Amino acid sequence: MDYQAVLDEVAAHVEPQIGRGQVAQYIPALAEVDAHRFGMAVADVDGRVTGVGDWEMPFSVQSISKAFGLALVLAQDGEKIWRRVGREPSGNPFNSLVQLEYENGIPRNPFINAGALVVTDRLHSLTGDASTTMLDFLRAESGNSELAFDPAVAASESDHGDRNAALAHFMAGYGNLDNPVPTVLEHYFWQCSIEMSCRDLALAGTFLARHGLRADGSRLLSRREAKRVNAVMLTCGTYDAAGDFAYRVGLPGKSGVGGGIIAVIPGRCTLCVWSPGLDARGNSVAGVAALDHFTTLTGWSVF
Amino acid sequence: MDYQAVLDEVAAHVEPQIGRGQVAQYIPALAEVDAHRFGMAVADVDGRVTGVGDWEMPFSVQSISKAFGLALVLAQDGEKIWRRVGREPSGNPFNSLVQLEYENGIPRNPFINAGALVVTDRLHSLTGDASTTMLDFLRAESGNSELAFDPAVAASESDHGDRNAALAHFMAGYGNLDNPVPTVLEHYFWQCSIEMSCRDLALAGTFLARHGLRADGSRLLSRREAKRVNAVMLTCGTYDAAGDFAYRVGLPGKSGVGGGIIAVIPGRCTLCVWSPGLDARGNSVAGVAALDHFTTLTGWSVF
Amino acid sequence: MDYQAVLDEVAAHVEPQIGRGQVAQYIPALAEVDAHRFGMAVADVDGRVTGVGDWEMPFSVQSISKAFGLALVLAQDGEKIWRRVGREPSGNPFNSLVQLEYENGIPRNPFINAGALVVTDRLHSLTGDASTTMLDFLRAESGNSELAFDPAVAASESDHGDRNAALAHFMAGYGNLDNPVPTVLEHYFWQCSIEMSCRDLALAGTFLARHGLRADGSRLLSRREAKRVNAVMLTCGTYDAAGDFAYRVGLPGKSGVGGGIIAVIPGRCTLCVWSPGLDARGNSVAGVAALDHFTTLTGWSVF
Amino acid sequence: MDYQAVLDEVAAHVEPQIGRGQVAQYIPALAEVDAHRFGMAVADVDGRVTGVGDWEMPFSVQSISKAFGLALVLAQDGEKIWRRVGREPSGNPFNSLVQLEYENGIPRNPFINAGALVVTDRLHSLTGDASTTMLDFLRAESGNSELAFDPAVAASESDHGDRNAALAHFMAGYGNLDNPVPTVLEHYFWQCSIEMSCRDLALAGTFLARHGLRADGSRLLSRREAKRVNAVMLTCGTYDAAGDFAYRVGLPGKSGVGGGIIAVIPGRCTLCVWSPGLDARGNSVAGVAALDHFTTLTGWSVF
Repeated sequence: MDYQAVLDEVAAHVEPQIGRGQVAQYIPALAEVDAHRFGMAVADVDGRVTGVGDWEMPFSVQSISKAFGLALVLAQDGEKIWRRVGREPSGNPFNSLVQLEYENGIPRNPFINAGALVVTDRLHSLTGDASTTMLDFLRAESGNSELAFDPAVAASESDHGDRNAALAHFMAGYGNLDNPVPTVLEHYFWQCSIEMSCRDLALAGTFLARHGLRADGSRLLSRREAKRVNAVMLTCGTYDAAGDFAYRVGLPGKSGVGGGIIAVIPGRCTLCVWSPGLDARGNSVAGVAALDHFTTLTGWSVF
Repeated sequence: MDYQAVLDEVAAHVEPQIGRGQVAQYIPALAEVDAHRFGMAVADVDGRVTGVGDWEMPFSVQSISKAFGLALVLAQDGEKIWRRVGREPSGNPFNSLVQLEYENGIPRNPFINAGALVVTDRLHSLTGDASTTMLDFLRAESGNSELAFDPAVAASESDHGDRNAALAHFMAGYGNLDNPVPTVLEHYFWQCSIEMSCRDLALAGTFLARHGLRADGSRLLSRREAKRVNAVMLTCGTYDAAGDFAYRVGLPGKSGVGGGIIAVIPGRCTLCVWSPGLDARGNSVAGVAALDHFTTLTGWSVF
Repeated sequence: MDYQAVLDEVAAHVEPQIGRGQVAQYIPALAEVDAHRFGMAVADVDGRVTGVGDWEMPFSVQSISKAFGLALVLAQDGEKIWRRVGREPSGNPFNSLVQLEYENGIPRNPFINAGALVVTDRLHSLTGDASTTMLDFLRAESGNSELAFDPAVAASESDHGDRNAALAHFMAGYGNLDNPVPTVLEHYFWQCSIEMSCRDLALAGTFLARHGLRADGSRLLSRREAKRVNAVMLTCGTYDAAGDFAYRVGLPGKSGVGGGIIAVIPGRCTLCVWSPGLDARGNSVAGVAALDHFTTLTGWSVF
Repeated sequence: MDYQAVLDEVAAHVEPQIGRGQVAQYIPALAEVDAHRFGMAVADVDGRVTGVGDWEMPFSVQSISKAFGLALVLAQDGEKIWRRVGREPSGNPFNSLVQLEYENGIPRNPFINAGALVVTDRLHSLTGDASTTMLDFLRAESGNSELAFDPAVAASESDHGDRNAALAHFMAGYGNLDNPVPTVLEHYFWQCSIEMSCRDLALAGTFLARHGLRADGSRLLSRREAKRVNAVMLTCGTYDAAGDFAYRVGLPGKSGVGGGIIAVIPGRCTLCVWSPGLDARGNSVAGVAALDHFTTLTGWSVF
């Protein structure tokens, strides 16, 4: 496969979509991003990476970090996490409290905010430092030792974090957090604030295409576990649009309100696309269109 | 009306109910209360007070404080509070987040916890010290200068306050709190922790029977406002059982999980009954039965 | 009390409100009514009736019939009906299915459509003909033997009755209907279609002011039962606005989408007001304003 | 791949699970099925079929018919159906009315009952006879001209069909059905009542593994459409357990309360498994276990 040719064609195809949608507004640090950015990268299972557009420009990973958090907890703790978080699609907007109440403080899945707070809490208990553990992992996999938190973004998330504080206190009221609420929130916000490029993220996610093997050949997840992370990404990875994403793109994916999306073609490669304009459900307009066109050109949906 | 004779007959009638139900368990300070207590007091519009049983024994007022908080805010601020809190029955358990989310951070009424947090926030903005303002008012109306917060109860509420913290952060996320969340919570918990007897509470609530006039003859609420507080008590004052309370007792009332209930017979008197055993909806079993029998004996329901 | 003077003043006061709001649109027969009609009547406990405006013009009683249905079932069957329908405010729009599902087919109260279907079902089982039983009762109480169903309205309700059919089938699925769904629906629609004037309705509802005594002096309901119907009207009688109605008007009341409202001043009189323009919650704009002003002028709220 | 060997091993492996769970009880015709049945079949893209156990014994397809209904409508009508039904996981039990009300009569996806009623309605409008169209298609694809409706099952569904009648009337109230409610219900129940064996169903579903090509080589769906049906099956095909099914099995699948499940391995084969004991979410206990073991043995999950 000539990835460069495919990416060039994808970039040309989605050009009219770039700038459409709405850049995330809920924190100033994200609202200032140029809506007209677009980048895309493919990292294959041999670690070769190809890109187009703004593929080396860092952006805020936001909820994409949730996929790495889940993998790190599964790697250390196995299936035990499923006692504290479900793995069903939420059927509701990503920060809904309704389902959480209805299900007694057990979040529907690890990719809604409530679920990611539980995963962060567990990762913190397992490692003593959830956010640094994740940063170290992302540096190692991407081969980019410069990766860092963005303190301005983390502080801004915290300042506008009442909804997440509500979720965390709510679950604490059900006994579903082990660490103090402020600690969990802090590490959650730091994880979301990490700045990475499409190149970095595609490389960092390659273990999901390699059935669990890390960049250095060591095993993070068993083959079965890696498939399972992909399954959760496909059914729950794009907020309230997972069905539509599966329908249009047909790949496991995880999006973030920074405008990034990673997607996995098991056994072949991991993709990352970035464009800040979001649709009504919080996914990058040009990003989804790019992945849709990529699978159309290559025929590589999982279906 | 020979109140003493009526109260004696009520006490005899409900004797089999005393001890039934479940003492509130969510904080240790409440769980230790003797379930077999029962007291009842009537304060008429002339300030005469009559009682039976443990009517002079202090207990934790808990949510009964919400009725006084609403009156104090209406007295200072008029109808403006209704922009920030509704006045419809909740149709859901008293601490539900569902309706709050459905209605964009506007609590259904001032007597569910979320609504009382908004009222506390407003009272704090108006007075600079919500909990002391309430304590001073209750001391003045009851004529009992010994009334005090119970620091152990307030601390215990705070320790077990994740659900209320979730509600407060949730509303803060919608911009419906003016003061910092910890400040609002602290004053809310202090208000709930006040210790009062049936005698104290019946006297303190007499302004509601006197169409807004305080014990010293000064006016707290207009006639119209006093009626309206009674209306909100009747439709929303007993958690998810307001319809049943209206059906059985037929009086405006406000209950608390400490086992107390105040009820108002407009133009005549204010009642307070206390017995710690609660029914499944958080209202005193013997307390509701006593009020039911009182209205049966006197014929004094509002209907 | 000079009722004529009060009614004249009320009519003058609410004149600017007449024609405001929206005439019910869901069936053609209602949509054609002139929005500028206004009438009001008071029937005292001695059966004297006074009116103003269009008080002798018939209109479609719609949901006001629910209050009479409840009274007729209580009269024959006592408290047993409460096993099949609750008596708590709904906290949701009047035809919501959500709460019905949440509570396993037991409607929240007899004045939401689902609850009225259960009451109709029971009345039909008790009498063999629910709608004729109600018509006969209304004729007798109002002294107007000309009262009749409006077949066009009943047919129109049936043609647009999918939502009610859904409610009925839903409850049938839970075993909460004894008669076939089409039978229950038919009698429900016929009851709603009855045409009455303010004069007729005020007279027909006088038993609620007379503590259960009918126009001929015979007893329909015990004193206690009559109070209880009033309690349910106050907490549940005006759709999702019961709290607001209690706050503003302070009387037990039952409204219909035909624009009518009956209200009870226990021991004194029963009121009926009619004006077709509805607010967003289905209650007559001018009608609520008229009752509000009536209680302001007379001081006769129950609070 | 030696399918016979794999199926034999699967059958041996799941033997302890057979008989577990609960046979569907809501209609007598299903409740009488022997819980200890187990059959499984694989039909590859060349039309070769292999089976184990009771793989040639007919059972009631029930909701498996929903997958064929969707394919038949997409084949004739393209993407227009998505204006009337969503394609997001429901996040709620399969027959919930809550989400339907919340979303104004648009069902979440075509595989919950409400969504299948809309698909049936559309298929009926397109063909003049929804149930016969489906039966003819299933006969042709399975090569079994004996396939038939089970009138006893269809009648029994109808007798116990109040919940589905409620759903249909509810959507009709929103204008989301073109045909009369009784017609739509009748064809829906007939479709569900079709009796097929694992052999029949595996063959009938082979077009989904063949990227849209029918058994006779003609095209039913475009390659893109076939992928999309698979995507909807993966995200929505197993009631409220789609996330768990993706996690454990990793294949597009559609289950029915008769105990059958079909699953698709794109480009390779279609599977059908049957065992009547259901888990709490309505999926065959032994069936899910068999598919789980099949993908473990073959490594053929889509992830």
